[in-house]
Amino acid sequence: MFDFNYFTPTKVVFGKNTQVKVADLIKEFGGSKVLVHYGTGSVVKSGLLKQVTDVLECSNIEYVTLGGAVPNPHLSLVYEGIELCKKENVDFILAVGGGSAIDSAKAIGYGVANEGDVWDFYDYKRKASGCLPIGVILTIAATGSEMSDSSVITKEEGLVKRGYSSDYCRPRFAIMNPELTMTLPDYQTACGCTDIMMHTMERYFTNGGNMEITDSLAEGLLRTVKKNAVILKEQPDNYEARAEVMWAGSLAHNGLTGCGNDGGDWMTHKLEHELGGLYDVAHGAGLAAVWGSWARYVYKNCLDRFKKFAINVMDIKESGSDEEIALLGIKAMEDFYRSIDMPVNLRELGVEPTEDELKLMAHKCAVGVGGQMGSARLLNEEDMLAIYKASV
Amino acid sequence: MFDFNYFTPTKVVFGKNTQVKVADLIKEFGGSKVLVHYGTGSVVKSGLLKQVTDVLECSNIEYVTLGGAVPNPHLSLVYEGIELCKKENVDFILAVGGGSAIDSAKAIGYGVANEGDVWDFYDYKRKASGCLPIGVILTIAATGSEMSDSSVITKEEGLVKRGYSSDYCRPRFAIMNPELTMTLPDYQTACGCTDIMMHTMERYFTNGGNMEITDSLAEGLLRTVKKNAVILKEQPDNYEARAEVMWAGSLAHNGLTGCGNDGGDWMTHKLEHELGGLYDVAHGAGLAAVWGSWARYVYKNCLDRFKKFAINVMDIKESGSDEEIALLGIKAMEDFYRSIDMPVNLRELGVEPTEDELKLMAHKCAVGVGGQMGSARLLNEEDMLAIYKASV
Repeated sequence: MFDFNYFTPTKVVFGKNTQVKVADLIKEFGGSKVLVHYGTGSVVKSGLLKQVTDVLECSNIEYVTLGGAVPNPHLSLVYEGIELCKKENVDFILAVGGGSAIDSAKAIGYGVANEGDVWDFYDYKRKASGCLPIGVILTIAATGSEMSDSSVITKEEGLVKRGYSSDYCRPRFAIMNPELTMTLPDYQTACGCTDIMMHTMERYFTNGGNMEITDSLAEGLLRTVKKNAVILKEQPDNYEARAEVMWAGSLAHNGLTGCGNDGGDWMTHKLEHELGGLYDVAHGAGLAAVWGSWARYVYKNCLDRFKKFAINVMDIKESGSDEEIALLGIKAMEDFYRSIDMPVNLRELGVEPTEDELKLMAHKCAVGVGGQMGSARLLNEEDMLAIYKASV
Repeated sequence: MFDFNYFTPTKVVFGKNTQVKVADLIKEFGGSKVLVHYGTGSVVKSGLLKQVTDVLECSNIEYVTLGGAVPNPHLSLVYEGIELCKKENVDFILAVGGGSAIDSAKAIGYGVANEGDVWDFYDYKRKASGCLPIGVILTIAATGSEMSDSSVITKEEGLVKRGYSSDYCRPRFAIMNPELTMTLPDYQTACGCTDIMMHTMERYFTNGGNMEITDSLAEGLLRTVKKNAVILKEQPDNYEARAEVMWAGSLAHNGLTGCGNDGGDWMTHKLEHELGGLYDVAHGAGLAAVWGSWARYVYKNCLDRFKKFAINVMDIKESGSDEEIALLGIKAMEDFYRSIDMPVNLRELGVEPTEDELKLMAHKCAVGVGGQMGSARLLNEEDMLAIYKASV
């Protein structure tokens, strides 16, 4: 196993109606002038935004609002948020929403706390030295951004989607009320479950220094999400299932399921990022659409882990060769994706790239990772193109 | 399931030779004058203390030292530490050792940051409003105090052992180098593994609001420690096994394995606390000595959980009645304790209390918990006496 750091300072307040505690939490973490940042209309329509601003007003906490964070959140809105924060002397950002609003809030936080162009961080040109404190009221279980150190932003010019990670942006608190996720469309719920599982699977399929305890936590988490994702397809208002998935979403991406390994593979995410940048598809669906092709391309180079996954997560009985078991596990995972209406190829995702577009994605992906990347199997541009082609 | 808060701000730095990072970490968390607090001779003999103070000196961090923290750490040393910190204007406490040094450091931290007698907190008379920041270099995997909110102190007068919990005392950082635990006597290693498992089991055997994901994490952790405790009996210098147990120790008591439940049962700990207070036995061994008697006394009131534990942790095959499966699980746990040379009754623990002493312990235990306590089964003084008697 490898040495590791583990740092999850986010105070989680989990349960029914916990959003009413937001003012106390903002005060606890020193906020006095707040940017309330949210996405598109749903938090307005549901009344959540009104409830939150009412609580802030009752507690005499000044605030300004900025909506408009979209999936694959845009750099232009980040710039707008930075300007607003500077003009209004904002000292705390409250993200109300899912990964889009949180990631956008993190980028705004970097932009306010650091001189120069915030895109520099996402473009790997320099490192941030701070971030405005962030708080979260979570409305979608998916990205795990509510406890993670990462954020992903899309620059509209050239549709470049890039992530930047540092401990500075880990939210100070995360309010998680599973009831707030009950009104999500089924498709978004399924996308969220996929994203959650993929955050753990990216860390699981590695060839570097795994720990038994990390594996056992990861496998337990995956089994839990797999089971409850199916329940939610039939019973979208099942509170217990919503809660299992919501808490799993945070644990899948706060670092817990990667302790002791080499950092993870992450190529499925990188391959999807180019899809997301080019076609603006839902992140979770994009992951599901390319994972099977990636898995079949790399499994022989990471056979022990694919076999373990098949047996401990997908309930494949231990008979046949290791390769056969591994392939059965991959197929079972695809069957699970289909069972919750997730695509397992680009056609099912609704995307039909031309040959040139496939090459463009592979090229951008390779450039984005500095030439080659992957722990289950090291992939270069040629490999990436082969996986994209297999996923058509 | 129940609502919950989850707050684990401790920065974990895990791996070989990580103790050399101590000065940077102290500076990161604002320390400028440090109390280095440790236990009895082992950290001196091993050279660790010298290595730590050398690092502090090289980094121009001023420090004073205070040794002498013993298992079931004493209030008198806590008072001494508080005086020393006030006299020397200490603003950071570094605990070098295991649960004794860390718990003692936490109590000193409370005493410096709050007016009045620090014992008031442990005597449930009032609540702390702060604590000096604490850092840890861990040398024993056991209590989980390196990430937990709890500390246990023994008042020598009347041998009263009490715990106090608050988020204020959670360490700012914990340096965990599994190599530092390799020189432990086998008995202490086994006691540590027992303590780690019990921290999870106390949270597992409840009748209140459990979550599937919490259960799956708890069961994975228990299986990992059970397996590696046996490995360590034969190979005490097995780094991987040391690391699995060390990380499990932190996760077992930082709150993770209790999310969504009612807070846990904790009666085995309370029963052991009286043993520890009266006989100064090793905490882990005391837990092992009373657990089986507690389990057989309560299992019918918490049958589903005992059955689940038997199957998912102790590998009992699912045949026979639920009660039979539960009892087989309890017996398998005792067999495991014996396999790592842990006692499963008071005689094996080396303690032979008189009838009056048993009554005294039951009475003190009942008073300590305010009359009655327990989630698997609510226990009063009479029940406690029955369990003590069954464990003789």
